[in-house]
Amino acid sequence: MSKRDSRCKVAVLGATGLVGRTMMKVLEERNFPATDFVPIASARSAGQNVTFRGQEFVIREPSAEVFRDVDIALFSAGATASREWAPIAAAEGAIVIDNSSAFRMEPNVPLVVPEVNPGDIFKADGTPEPIIANPNCSTIQMVVALKPLHDKYGVKRVIVSTYQSVTGKGKAGRDALESELAGEAQEQFTHFHQIAFNAVPQIDAFTENGYTKEEMKMVNETRKIMGDDSISVSPTTVRIPVYGGHGEALNIELAKEFDIDEVRALLASSPGIILQDDPSARLYPMPLTSYERDEVFVGRVRRDYWHPQTLNMWIVSDNLRKGAATNAVQIAEVIVVKR
Amino acid sequence: MSKRDSRCKVAVLGATGLVGRTMMKVLEERNFPATDFVPIASARSAGQNVTFRGQEFVIREPSAEVFRDVDIALFSAGATASREWAPIAAAEGAIVIDNSSAFRMEPNVPLVVPEVNPGDIFKADGTPEPIIANPNCSTIQMVVALKPLHDKYGVKRVIVSTYQSVTGKGKAGRDALESELAGEAQEQFTHFHQIAFNAVPQIDAFTENGYTKEEMKMVNETRKIMGDDSISVSPTTVRIPVYGGHGEALNIELAKEFDIDEVRALLASSPGIILQDDPSARLYPMPLTSYERDEVFVGRVRRDYWHPQTLNMWIVSDNLRKGAATNAVQIAEVIVVKR
Repeated sequence: MSKRDSRCKVAVLGATGLVGRTMMKVLEERNFPATDFVPIASARSAGQNVTFRGQEFVIREPSAEVFRDVDIALFSAGATASREWAPIAAAEGAIVIDNSSAFRMEPNVPLVVPEVNPGDIFKADGTPEPIIANPNCSTIQMVVALKPLHDKYGVKRVIVSTYQSVTGKGKAGRDALESELAGEAQEQFTHFHQIAFNAVPQIDAFTENGYTKEEMKMVNETRKIMGDDSISVSPTTVRIPVYGGHGEALNIELAKEFDIDEVRALLASSPGIILQDDPSARLYPMPLTSYERDEVFVGRVRRDYWHPQTLNMWIVSDNLRKGAATNAVQIAEVIVVKR
Repeated sequence: MSKRDSRCKVAVLGATGLVGRTMMKVLEERNFPATDFVPIASARSAGQNVTFRGQEFVIREPSAEVFRDVDIALFSAGATASREWAPIAAAEGAIVIDNSSAFRMEPNVPLVVPEVNPGDIFKADGTPEPIIANPNCSTIQMVVALKPLHDKYGVKRVIVSTYQSVTGKGKAGRDALESELAGEAQEQFTHFHQIAFNAVPQIDAFTENGYTKEEMKMVNETRKIMGDDSISVSPTTVRIPVYGGHGEALNIELAKEFDIDEVRALLASSPGIILQDDPSARLYPMPLTSYERDEVFVGRVRRDYWHPQTLNMWIVSDNLRKGAATNAVQIAEVIVVKR
């Protein structure tokens, strides 16, 4: 993609998954300037058709040849597929935007949220890095909300409790809840336990320190995206029976004193954020109202009266959109604009 | 009840409500030494029968006469009914254990969780106070878990995010979720918004400081029950579509350094607590497994590696049981044992 031309062939690896299909929808909605398109998925789906911008495309199996003339490849087929195919796609000249956890903490791979660190996409010579990682859903929405606060006041410490949608586990996660609600037996618990009428304080596997991988992603990815290893995040991640988005209760300690109305005004005017904060009208972010939206919704902004320079807020964002597909497409947009 | 006899007539005001019926069930299960029983409810239910210990009792409307020979009156009919009838029942000689918010913060009314401050039930002369308040459900389970930590290490600061069951709004709360799931239109949103597939960051009305009444209960009741105004609680309370119990993610800053295994052992051996903390077996507290249990379940106990003398844990308890009915019956048990 070093050539300065208008050609832009886009591939989506994982085109049949919930995130892959959302990527295609977001590309359409945002009129992404794709001149050609190739859906890629496993052998199970290869040969089937998918519709993109009213046109039928045949799903291909991944191969070096398939990536040969691709300019931007959006990956969302899991870490194993990414580890196998991202280097091959990059070697063929594609810029890979990878939604898996495979490369996120690699020092030479940028981890990007366009509202926070768009500059990290590019090398010193101004060309994009060959592989760019899309952060974890629960991290993305949090750093969008933290960024303006960090720039103005300095974020020292965040205690976060998440309320995460079943769609974080893709179609399987949604199907598990639906079949449980229909009273059908589940052979395999996608969410480790029944999720209908339940709250499961485990997302992903446990690490040795007692935190889950999901929790450690919030700890480590936040520092990398914000470019500040002094920010501490202490997380508890919980799956609940909702669609539409992840909720997060944030307690944020700042380095400087703040005025709470200034904080509200700052958030309301920051990119990617919609302030929904009117208790008298019962207006605050909710999974139901963030569904199929691209922004991070912020509300319940209030001082923590019991600790200096600290505030509480509640944020919600559609984990399939800003938490995955939209963020990846936004990275692609930054790249095509710069060409 | 100053007479030292074996007579103990028990009344339940609000006998047709979800908490009232749970009170009757808990009295039965725990073989509470009631020698007589009178169910009391509004005119709408008066005259109907309820079964208690296999025997039919006619529901009475509240009146001074109905309370005349009652020894212990368990109230769960809302704050308005409590304000009207508790003084009358007390004047008639009954000891009122009130589950509403009416008297909780009154300086001369004890607010009691038997695992924490059973001594507050009694006056200096050893007789029980005429009105004893049962705390709010979300506070009760938290203080049971905090008490042993406070005694050994000193609790300085708690940041709590709740995941609260629809049964916190009684039968109406449960019915709202069920009819929403059945696709039936709701004329009135008991939970302010649709609760099916949603998370609503509002429980009870907002106060002027931006926190809800539910949140301020956790702030103020905790200090009163623990008898320590230096403990700070910074809460976010959220309703989610679960039955069975409230979840709470707690970040707890202690005054002294601790060993995390000692904390676990301490919690496991403390009254009213069951430690469920084995990540390798995917064992942790959940609403589904706390349903119809009387204890507070504690798990996910782990150091907050990013802040000194701080730990995270996750607790769940059945809000109709320990959060309401069981706690009230336990208070009654302390009183009858002392007679």
